[in-house]
Amino acid sequence: VNGLDRTETEIHPAQKLSARVEGVFAALGENFVTQQVEALELTFEGIVGDIHAGHTRRSGGREPWYPRGTEMANERQLSIVSDEELARIAGLMEVPLVRPEWIGANLLISGVPALSMVPPRSQFFFENGVTIRIDGQNAPCRVAGRSLARHAAPADPSAAELRFPAVAKRLRGLVAWVEKPGRILPGERVSIRVPEQWIYRPGS
Amino acid sequence: VNGLDRTETEIHPAQKLSARVEGVFAALGENFVTQQVEALELTFEGIVGDIHAGHTRRSGGREPWYPRGTEMANERQLSIVSDEELARIAGLMEVPLVRPEWIGANLLISGVPALSMVPPRSQFFFENGVTIRIDGQNAPCRVAGRSLARHAAPADPSAAELRFPAVAKRLRGLVAWVEKPGRILPGERVSIRVPEQWIYRPGS
Repeated sequence: VNGLDRTETEIHPAQKLSARVEGVFAALGENFVTQQVEALELTFEGIVGDIHAGHTRRSGGREPWYPRGTEMANERQLSIVSDEELARIAGLMEVPLVRPEWIGANLLISGVPALSMVPPRSQFFFENGVTIRIDGQNAPCRVAGRSLARHAAPADPSAAELRFPAVAKRLRGLVAWVEKPGRILPGERVSIRVPEQWIYRPGS
Repeated sequence: VNGLDRTETEIHPAQKLSARVEGVFAALGENFVTQQVEALELTFEGIVGDIHAGHTRRSGGREPWYPRGTEMANERQLSIVSDEELARIAGLMEVPLVRPEWIGANLLISGVPALSMVPPRSQFFFENGVTIRIDGQNAPCRVAGRSLARHAAPADPSAAELRFPAVAKRLRGLVAWVEKPGRILPGERVSIRVPEQWIYRPGS
């Protein structure tokens, strides 16, 4: 007997996935574009030296419920993308390739089907001891589209910039924050724990 | 065209719920039992003066993947329970009532069906300006069961302590962290945003 009986909600059990770190990147300059680095040094505030590090951040267009610039907790310390999804975005955008740096990713991984669909509260346990916790899907924006259009040289850059947010939806990876600090190196194995899931249905 | 086509995953749209704050409580002593307070003062570290406040915490039995006492990010700053679920736990435990204080809750709310099923990444926007973000379900433990058994005087306290974790599963509310600080007062209205949901199916 427990709460499950009441809601008649189907509970999908926790899942385990595995992945590999293909590259690590940091935004060491003044904008969100990243560059490849040898390692990611993580504290509880995020990536040392990265513009997104901090216990807090300022709100923007993703948080229409706040005045722009409101100080809020920083659940977006890291951006994670996958080889497989970047290849798919490239195909849909009709460009030869999409580099993680162009859209500000910090971590490129391989081996996880549909990375962007890995749900909130999932944990990524890295071989060398780091844990990051997934906040959720990273919604693609015009700023990333503009950077992609500038770097990838599509036939029509203006159209590409505009199309990116729709094309990359549910393919643009995840944002996460540091649960357990340390160092992430390319080539590390990652064990992923996807928690129990269900669909919230207030009426049931 | 977007990632959704690939996975053939059913996406359930975001939902809005509303609730009311029925009481606020803090653990001002040396253990997790809370006492009613006039207001909750929140910073980015949690409730001022509460033993669970902090950017980090020490791991315990809920994190079998870490040695006990490992420093980790504190996603458990607040414990939230509902009138409706506490009444149901009381019924199942065969005691007259279950007070939020006995199981260490910080926030008692009413009006949300199946509070414990509100999923990770949901946001609670309080009338006076605070936002908290849901990490997820709070798993009931023996420690809370012991406290309940001591306070509620069931017919067989030892049996009650043992039964609590199973009985209160999916009824014990949520844990959350502060996204936007401020003050929470009894009687405030709460607007809840449940994000898009889906079930992760790697094979699809």
